[in-house]
Amino acid sequence: MKYPTALQTLIDKLSNLPSVGPKTAERYAFYLLRQSPDRLKSFGQAISELQEKIIICHNCLSICEQNPCPICSDPARRRDVLCVVENIQDLNAIESTRQYDGRYYILGGLINTISGVGPDDLNIEKLLRTIKTGEVKEIILALNFTLEGETTSLYLTKILKDRLKITRLAKGLPAGSDLEYADELTLANALKYRSEMTK
Amino acid sequence: MKYPTALQTLIDKLSNLPSVGPKTAERYAFYLLRQSPDRLKSFGQAISELQEKIIICHNCLSICEQNPCPICSDPARRRDVLCVVENIQDLNAIESTRQYDGRYYILGGLINTISGVGPDDLNIEKLLRTIKTGEVKEIILALNFTLEGETTSLYLTKILKDRLKITRLAKGLPAGSDLEYADELTLANALKYRSEMTK
Repeated sequence: MKYPTALQTLIDKLSNLPSVGPKTAERYAFYLLRQSPDRLKSFGQAISELQEKIIICHNCLSICEQNPCPICSDPARRRDVLCVVENIQDLNAIESTRQYDGRYYILGGLINTISGVGPDDLNIEKLLRTIKTGEVKEIILALNFTLEGETTSLYLTKILKDRLKITRLAKGLPAGSDLEYADELTLANALKYRSEMTK
Repeated sequence: MKYPTALQTLIDKLSNLPSVGPKTAERYAFYLLRQSPDRLKSFGQAISELQEKIIICHNCLSICEQNPCPICSDPARRRDVLCVVENIQDLNAIESTRQYDGRYYILGGLINTISGVGPDDLNIEKLLRTIKTGEVKEIILALNFTLEGETTSLYLTKILKDRLKITRLAKGLPAGSDLEYADELTLANALKYRSEMTK
Protein backbone atom coordinates (compact mmCIF):
# COMPACT_ATOMS: atom_id res chain seq x y z
CA MET A 1 0.00 0.00 0.00
CA LYS A 2 1.61 3.21 -1.20
CA TYR A 3 -0.78 5.60 0.53
CA PRO A 4 -2.85 5.70 3.73
CA THR A 5 -5.93 3.44 3.39
CA ALA A 6 -8.47 6.30 3.16
CA LEU A 7 -6.49 7.90 0.35
CA GLN A 8 -5.84 4.62 -1.49
CA THR A 9 -9.53 3.68 -1.25
CA LEU A 10 -10.49 6.99 -2.84
CA ILE A 11 -7.84 6.59 -5.56
CA ASP A 12 -9.24 3.13 -6.39
CA LYS A 13 -12.77 4.52 -6.60
CA LEU A 14 -11.68 7.44 -8.78
CA SER A 15 -9.85 4.99 -11.08
CA ASN A 16 -13.25 3.48 -11.93
CA LEU A 17 -14.39 6.72 -13.60
CA PRO A 18 -14.42 6.43 -17.40
CA SER A 19 -10.94 6.74 -18.96
CA VAL A 20 -9.31 7.59 -15.61
CA GLY A 21 -6.14 5.62 -14.87
CA PRO A 22 -4.31 5.31 -11.55
CA LYS A 23 -2.10 8.36 -12.23
CA THR A 24 -5.05 10.66 -12.99
CA ALA A 25 -6.94 9.23 -10.01
CA GLU A 26 -3.94 10.12 -7.84
CA ARG A 27 -3.96 13.70 -9.12
CA TYR A 28 -7.69 14.01 -8.38
CA ALA A 29 -7.22 12.53 -4.89
CA PHE A 30 -4.36 14.90 -4.04
CA TYR A 31 -6.43 17.82 -5.30
CA LEU A 32 -9.27 16.71 -3.01
CA LEU A 33 -6.88 16.28 -0.08
CA ARG A 34 -6.02 19.99 -0.34
CA GLN A 35 -9.66 21.13 -0.19
CA SER A 36 -11.36 22.44 2.95
CA PRO A 37 -13.33 19.84 4.97
CA ASP A 38 -16.55 21.71 4.13
CA ARG A 39 -15.95 21.51 0.39
CA LEU A 40 -15.09 17.81 0.67
CA LYS A 41 -18.26 17.15 2.67
CA SER A 42 -20.50 18.83 0.11
CA PHE A 43 -18.69 17.07 -2.76
CA GLY A 44 -19.10 13.70 -1.08
CA GLN A 45 -22.75 14.42 -0.36
CA ALA A 46 -23.40 15.44 -3.98
CA ILE A 47 -22.25 11.96 -5.01
CA SER A 48 -23.94 10.01 -2.19
CA GLU A 49 -27.31 11.65 -2.70
CA LEU A 50 -27.19 11.89 -6.50
CA GLN A 51 -29.77 9.24 -7.22
CA GLU A 52 -32.13 10.18 -4.38
CA LYS A 53 -32.78 13.59 -5.90
CA ILE A 54 -33.20 12.50 -9.50
CA ILE A 55 -36.30 10.86 -10.93
CA ILE A 56 -37.36 9.62 -14.35
CA CYS A 57 -40.08 11.53 -16.23
CA HIS A 58 -42.94 9.08 -16.82
CA ASN A 59 -43.60 10.63 -20.23
CA CYS A 60 -40.27 10.94 -22.01
CA LEU A 61 -38.11 8.80 -19.66
CA SER A 62 -35.64 11.67 -19.28
CA ILE A 63 -34.01 12.30 -15.90
CA CYS A 64 -35.47 15.25 -14.01
CA GLU A 65 -36.49 16.62 -10.62
CA GLN A 66 -40.24 16.74 -11.22
CA ASN A 67 -42.64 14.41 -13.01
CA PRO A 68 -43.55 15.19 -15.77
CA CYS A 69 -40.32 16.98 -16.68
CA PRO A 70 -40.27 20.71 -17.60
CA ILE A 71 -40.34 19.95 -21.34
CA CYS A 72 -43.23 17.47 -21.15
CA SER A 73 -45.25 19.82 -18.92
CA ASP A 74 -44.61 22.90 -21.09
CA PRO A 75 -47.93 23.76 -22.85
CA ALA A 76 -46.00 25.67 -25.56
CA ARG A 77 -44.41 22.42 -26.73
CA ARG A 78 -46.10 20.71 -29.67
CA ARG A 79 -47.62 17.33 -28.82
CA ASP A 80 -47.73 16.08 -32.41
CA VAL A 81 -43.96 15.73 -32.94
CA LEU A 82 -41.80 13.36 -30.93
CA CYS A 83 -38.02 13.45 -31.23
CA VAL A 84 -36.47 10.06 -30.37
CA VAL A 85 -32.97 10.42 -28.87
CA GLU A 86 -30.56 7.96 -27.34
CA ASN A 87 -30.01 9.83 -24.06
CA ILE A 88 -30.36 13.13 -22.21
CA GLN A 89 -27.02 14.42 -23.57
CA ASP A 90 -28.40 14.16 -27.12
CA LEU A 91 -31.64 15.78 -25.96
CA ASN A 92 -29.63 18.73 -24.62
CA ALA A 93 -27.65 18.97 -27.87
CA ILE A 94 -30.90 19.39 -29.82
CA GLU A 95 -32.37 21.77 -27.22
CA SER A 96 -29.29 23.98 -27.55
CA THR A 97 -30.17 24.66 -31.22
CA ARG A 98 -33.43 26.35 -30.02
CA GLN A 99 -34.99 25.14 -33.28
CA TYR A 100 -37.21 22.38 -31.95
CA ASP A 101 -40.53 22.99 -30.22
CA GLY A 102 -41.82 19.43 -29.96
CA ARG A 103 -41.29 16.79 -27.30
CA TYR A 104 -38.68 14.11 -26.76
CA TYR A 105 -38.48 10.43 -26.05
CA ILE A 106 -35.39 8.84 -24.50
CA LEU A 107 -34.60 5.46 -26.04
CA GLY A 108 -31.98 4.64 -23.43
CA GLY A 109 -29.48 3.06 -25.82
CA LEU A 110 -28.91 1.81 -29.35
CA ILE A 111 -29.14 -1.68 -30.83
CA ASN A 112 -25.66 -3.19 -30.75
CA THR A 113 -25.41 -6.79 -31.87
CA ILE A 114 -21.74 -7.03 -30.84
CA SER A 115 -22.39 -5.97 -27.21
CA GLY A 116 -25.64 -7.94 -27.24
CA VAL A 117 -27.97 -4.93 -26.90
CA GLY A 118 -31.23 -5.86 -28.62
CA PRO A 119 -34.54 -4.01 -29.15
CA ASP A 120 -35.85 -5.45 -25.85
CA ASP A 121 -33.14 -3.58 -23.94
CA LEU A 122 -34.39 -0.21 -25.22
CA ASN A 123 -37.47 1.75 -24.08
CA ILE A 124 -39.47 0.71 -27.16
CA GLU A 125 -42.54 -0.75 -25.45
CA LYS A 126 -43.38 2.57 -23.77
CA LEU A 127 -42.82 4.35 -27.12
CA LEU A 128 -45.43 2.14 -28.78
CA ARG A 129 -47.91 2.90 -25.97
CA THR A 130 -47.27 6.65 -26.38
CA ILE A 131 -47.97 6.42 -30.09
CA LYS A 132 -51.19 4.44 -29.57
CA THR A 133 -52.97 7.55 -28.26
CA GLY A 134 -52.80 8.96 -31.81
CA GLU A 135 -51.61 12.35 -30.58
CA VAL A 136 -48.17 12.03 -32.21
CA LYS A 137 -48.18 12.54 -36.00
CA GLU A 138 -44.45 12.56 -36.68
CA ILE A 139 -41.46 10.85 -35.12
CA ILE A 140 -38.04 12.40 -35.72
CA LEU A 141 -35.27 9.83 -35.32
CA ALA A 142 -32.32 11.81 -33.93
CA LEU A 143 -29.89 8.94 -33.44
CA ASN A 144 -26.14 8.85 -34.13
CA PHE A 145 -25.09 8.20 -37.72
CA THR A 146 -23.08 5.17 -36.56
CA LEU A 147 -23.67 1.49 -37.24
CA GLU A 148 -25.64 1.21 -33.98
CA GLY A 149 -27.66 4.37 -34.60
CA GLU A 150 -28.50 3.41 -38.18
CA THR A 151 -29.50 -0.12 -37.16
CA THR A 152 -31.80 1.28 -34.48
CA SER A 153 -33.29 3.84 -36.88
CA LEU A 154 -34.00 1.11 -39.44
CA TYR A 155 -35.55 -1.12 -36.78
CA LEU A 156 -37.81 1.67 -35.46
CA THR A 157 -38.81 2.68 -39.00
CA LYS A 158 -39.76 -0.91 -39.75
CA ILE A 159 -42.09 -1.28 -36.75
CA LEU A 160 -43.54 2.25 -36.87
CA LYS A 161 -43.77 3.31 -40.52
CA ASP A 162 -47.32 2.02 -41.04
CA ARG A 163 -48.63 4.03 -38.09
CA LEU A 164 -47.19 7.54 -38.53
CA LYS A 165 -44.66 9.70 -40.39
CA ILE A 166 -41.03 8.88 -39.58
CA THR A 167 -38.22 11.33 -40.37
CA ARG A 168 -34.53 11.40 -39.51
CA LEU A 169 -31.92 14.19 -39.20
CA ALA A 170 -30.34 15.38 -42.47
CA LYS A 171 -27.10 13.86 -43.69
CA GLY A 172 -24.65 16.27 -45.29
CA LEU A 173 -21.61 18.45 -44.82
CA PRO A 174 -21.15 20.09 -41.40
CA ALA A 175 -21.30 23.91 -41.16
CA GLY A 176 -18.03 25.62 -42.06
CA SER A 177 -16.61 22.48 -43.66
CA ASP A 178 -14.08 22.37 -46.46
CA LEU A 179 -15.00 20.06 -49.37
CA GLU A 180 -11.34 19.14 -49.85
CA TYR A 181 -11.13 17.58 -46.39
CA ALA A 182 -14.60 16.01 -46.20
CA ASP A 183 -14.63 12.21 -46.12
CA GLU A 184 -16.07 10.38 -49.12
CA LEU A 185 -19.21 9.11 -47.39
CA THR A 186 -20.14 12.57 -46.08
CA LEU A 187 -19.59 14.09 -49.51
CA ALA A 188 -21.56 11.30 -51.19
CA ASN A 189 -24.44 11.93 -48.75
CA ALA A 190 -24.25 15.69 -49.33
CA LEU A 191 -24.56 15.07 -53.07
CA LYS A 192 -27.35 12.51 -52.71
CA TYR A 193 -29.45 14.69 -50.37
CA ARG A 194 -28.71 18.00 -52.14
CA SER A 195 -31.46 20.61 -51.94
CA GLU A 196 -32.76 23.20 -54.40
CA MET A 197 -31.43 26.73 -54.02
CA THR A 198 -34.92 28.23 -54.17
CA LYS A 199 -35.84 26.58 -50.91
CA MET B 1 -29.91 24.71 -16.37
CA LYS B 2 -29.37 21.78 -18.71
CA TYR B 3 -29.69 19.01 -16.12
CA PRO B 4 -31.57 18.41 -12.85
CA THR B 5 -30.03 20.47 -10.01
CA ALA B 6 -28.47 17.50 -8.19
CA LEU B 7 -26.75 16.35 -11.39
CA GLN B 8 -25.65 19.85 -12.42
CA THR B 9 -24.24 20.50 -8.92
CA LEU B 10 -22.17 17.33 -9.17
CA ILE B 11 -21.00 18.22 -12.70
CA ASP B 12 -19.86 21.65 -11.43
CA LYS B 13 -17.96 20.06 -8.55
CA LEU B 14 -16.33 17.48 -10.83
CA SER B 15 -15.29 20.31 -13.21
CA ASN B 16 -13.09 21.67 -10.40
CA LEU B 17 -10.88 18.57 -10.50
CA PRO B 18 -7.51 19.27 -12.13
CA SER B 19 -7.69 19.40 -15.96
CA VAL B 20 -11.34 18.28 -16.00
CA GLY B 21 -13.58 20.38 -18.26
CA PRO B 22 -17.39 20.44 -18.36
CA LYS B 23 -17.57 17.63 -20.98
CA THR B 24 -15.39 15.24 -18.96
CA ALA B 25 -17.28 16.18 -15.77
CA GLU B 26 -20.51 15.26 -17.58
CA ARG B 27 -19.10 11.85 -18.53
CA TYR B 28 -18.05 11.21 -14.93
CA ALA B 29 -21.45 12.31 -13.62
CA PHE B 30 -23.35 10.05 -16.03
CA TYR B 31 -21.08 7.15 -15.10
CA LEU B 32 -21.89 7.80 -11.43
CA LEU B 33 -25.62 8.05 -12.19
CA ARG B 34 -25.52 4.47 -13.48
CA GLN B 35 -23.89 3.07 -10.31
CA SER B 36 -25.80 1.30 -7.55
CA PRO B 37 -26.89 3.50 -4.61
CA ASP B 38 -24.52 1.54 -2.34
CA ARG B 39 -21.49 2.22 -4.53
CA LEU B 40 -22.41 5.90 -4.75
CA LYS B 41 -22.79 6.11 -0.96
CA SER B 42 -19.38 4.58 -0.32
CA PHE B 43 -17.77 6.78 -3.00
CA GLY B 44 -19.32 9.90 -1.50
CA GLN B 45 -18.24 8.85 1.96
CA ALA B 46 -14.65 8.21 0.80
CA ILE B 47 -14.52 11.86 -0.28
CA SER B 48 -16.37 13.36 2.70
CA GLU B 49 -14.26 11.55 5.27
CA LEU B 50 -10.92 11.76 3.45
CA GLN B 51 -9.27 14.27 5.70
CA GLU B 52 -10.64 12.86 8.96
CA LYS B 53 -8.78 9.61 8.47
CA ILE B 54 -5.47 11.05 7.33
CA ILE B 55 -2.88 12.59 9.64
CA ILE B 56 0.55 14.12 9.20
CA CYS B 57 3.59 12.24 10.52
CA HIS B 58 5.25 14.54 13.09
CA ASN B 59 8.67 13.35 11.97
CA CYS B 60 8.76 13.49 8.19
CA LEU B 61 5.53 15.49 7.58
CA SER B 62 4.29 12.78 5.22
CA ILE B 63 0.57 11.89 5.20
CA CYS B 64 -0.22 8.65 7.01
CA GLU B 65 -2.67 6.84 9.27
CA GLN B 66 -0.41 6.51 12.31
CA ASN B 67 2.10 8.85 13.90
CA PRO B 68 5.02 8.33 13.40
CA CYS B 69 4.48 6.88 9.92
CA PRO B 70 5.52 3.30 9.01
CA ILE B 71 8.83 4.48 7.50
CA CYS B 72 9.80 6.72 10.43
CA SER B 73 8.91 3.99 12.96
CA ASP B 74 10.76 1.23 11.06
CA PRO B 75 13.89 0.34 13.12
CA ALA B 76 15.56 -1.10 9.99
CA ARG B 77 15.65 2.36 8.43
CA ARG B 78 18.92 4.27 8.83
CA ARG B 79 18.62 7.41 10.95
CA ASP B 80 21.76 9.08 9.59
CA VAL B 81 20.51 9.75 6.06
CA LEU B 82 17.56 12.01 5.31
CA CYS B 83 16.11 12.25 1.80
CA VAL B 84 14.40 15.60 1.22
CA VAL B 85 11.51 15.33 -1.28
CA GLU B 86 8.87 17.76 -2.45
CA ASN B 87 5.84 15.58 -1.69
CA ILE B 88 4.59 12.07 -0.96
CA GLN B 89 4.37 11.20 -4.67
CA ASP B 90 8.14 11.76 -5.00
CA LEU B 91 8.69 9.78 -1.79
CA ASN B 92 6.79 6.86 -3.34
CA ALA B 93 8.80 7.14 -6.56
CA ILE B 94 12.03 6.71 -4.58
CA GLU B 95 10.56 3.95 -2.41
CA SER B 96 9.62 2.03 -5.55
CA THR B 97 13.32 1.70 -6.48
CA ARG B 98 13.86 -0.34 -3.24
CA GLN B 99 17.38 1.12 -3.17
CA TYR B 100 17.02 3.55 -0.28
CA ASP B 101 17.03 2.49 3.37
CA GLY B 102 17.14 5.91 5.04
CA ARG B 103 14.33 8.22 6.08
CA TYR B 104 12.48 11.00 4.31
CA TYR B 105 11.49 14.57 4.88
CA ILE B 106 8.60 16.20 2.99
CA LEU B 107 9.39 19.79 2.01
CA GLY B 108 5.80 20.49 0.95
CA GLY B 109 6.69 22.52 -2.14
CA LEU B 110 9.49 24.21 -4.06
CA ILE B 111 10.66 27.81 -4.09
CA ASN B 112 8.91 29.56 -6.97
CA THR B 113 9.54 33.26 -7.26
CA ILE B 114 6.94 33.68 -10.01
CA SER B 115 4.09 32.17 -7.97
CA GLY B 116 5.44 33.88 -4.84
CA VAL B 117 6.41 30.67 -3.00
CA GLY B 118 9.35 31.54 -0.76
CA PRO B 119 11.45 29.51 1.72
CA ASP B 120 9.03 30.47 4.52
CA ASP B 121 6.22 28.61 2.73
CA LEU B 122 8.16 25.32 2.88
CA ASN B 123 8.69 23.03 5.86
CA ILE B 124 12.26 24.26 6.40
CA GLU B 125 12.05 25.29 10.07
CA LYS B 126 11.16 21.75 11.17
CA LEU B 127 14.01 20.42 8.97
CA LEU B 128 16.51 22.62 10.81
CA ARG B 129 15.19 21.36 14.16
CA THR B 130 15.52 17.72 12.97
CA ILE B 131 19.12 18.34 11.97
CA LYS B 132 19.99 20.00 15.29
CA THR B 133 19.82 16.63 17.09
CA GLY B 134 23.01 15.68 15.21
CA GLU B 135 21.62 12.26 14.29
CA VAL B 136 21.48 13.01 10.55
CA LYS B 137 24.89 12.96 8.83
CA GLU B 138 23.80 13.29 5.20
CA ILE B 139 20.94 15.02 3.44
CA ILE B 140 20.03 13.80 -0.05
CA LEU B 141 18.23 16.50 -2.02
CA ALA B 142 15.81 14.58 -4.26
CA LEU B 143 14.06 17.54 -5.86
CA ASN B 144 12.97 17.99 -9.48
CA PHE B 145 15.63 19.16 -11.94
CA THR B 146 13.49 22.16 -12.82
CA LEU B 147 14.10 25.84 -12.19
CA GLU B 148 12.07 25.58 -8.96
CA GLY B 149 13.76 22.38 -7.82
CA GLU B 150 17.26 23.68 -8.53
CA THR B 151 16.54 27.00 -6.79
CA THR B 152 15.31 25.11 -3.72
CA SER B 153 18.31 22.73 -3.78
CA LEU B 154 20.71 25.71 -3.95
CA TYR B 155 18.91 27.48 -1.12
CA LEU B 156 18.95 24.40 1.13
CA THR B 157 22.62 23.74 0.33
CA LYS B 158 23.45 27.31 1.27
CA ILE B 159 21.80 27.17 4.70
CA LEU B 160 22.81 23.58 5.53
CA LYS B 161 26.24 22.95 4.00
CA ASP B 162 28.22 24.01 7.09
CA ARG B 163 26.36 21.58 9.31
CA LEU B 164 26.33 18.26 7.42
CA LYS B 165 26.99 16.53 4.10
CA ILE B 166 24.58 17.51 1.31
CA THR B 167 24.17 15.39 -1.82
CA ARG B 168 21.73 15.48 -4.71
CA LEU B 169 20.47 12.89 -7.23
CA ALA B 170 22.76 12.21 -10.21
CA LYS B 171 22.25 14.10 -13.46
CA GLY B 172 22.76 12.09 -16.63
CA LEU B 173 21.11 10.09 -19.36
CA PRO B 174 17.99 8.10 -18.47
CA ALA B 175 18.11 4.30 -18.67
CA GLY B 176 17.59 2.95 -22.18
CA SER B 177 18.15 6.33 -23.77
CA ASP B 178 19.52 6.95 -27.25
CA LEU B 179 22.33 9.53 -27.46
CA GLU B 180 21.04 10.73 -30.82
CA TYR B 181 17.77 11.89 -29.31
CA ALA B 182 19.03 13.18 -25.94
CA ASP B 183 18.67 16.93 -25.44
CA GLU B 184 21.85 19.01 -25.25
CA LEU B 185 21.63 19.83 -21.56
CA THR B 186 21.15 16.18 -20.56
CA LEU B 187 24.06 15.14 -22.75
CA ALA B 188 26.24 17.96 -21.40
CA ASN B 189 25.42 16.82 -17.85
CA ALA B 190 26.13 13.19 -18.72
CA LEU B 191 29.53 14.26 -20.01
CA LYS B 192 30.28 16.54 -17.07
CA TYR B 193 29.33 13.95 -14.43
CA ARG B 194 30.83 10.95 -16.26
CA SER B 195 32.09 8.16 -14.00
CA GLU B 196 35.08 5.85 -14.24
CA MET B 197 34.43 2.40 -15.65
CA THR B 198 36.27 0.70 -12.81
CA LYS B 199 33.69 1.88 -10.30
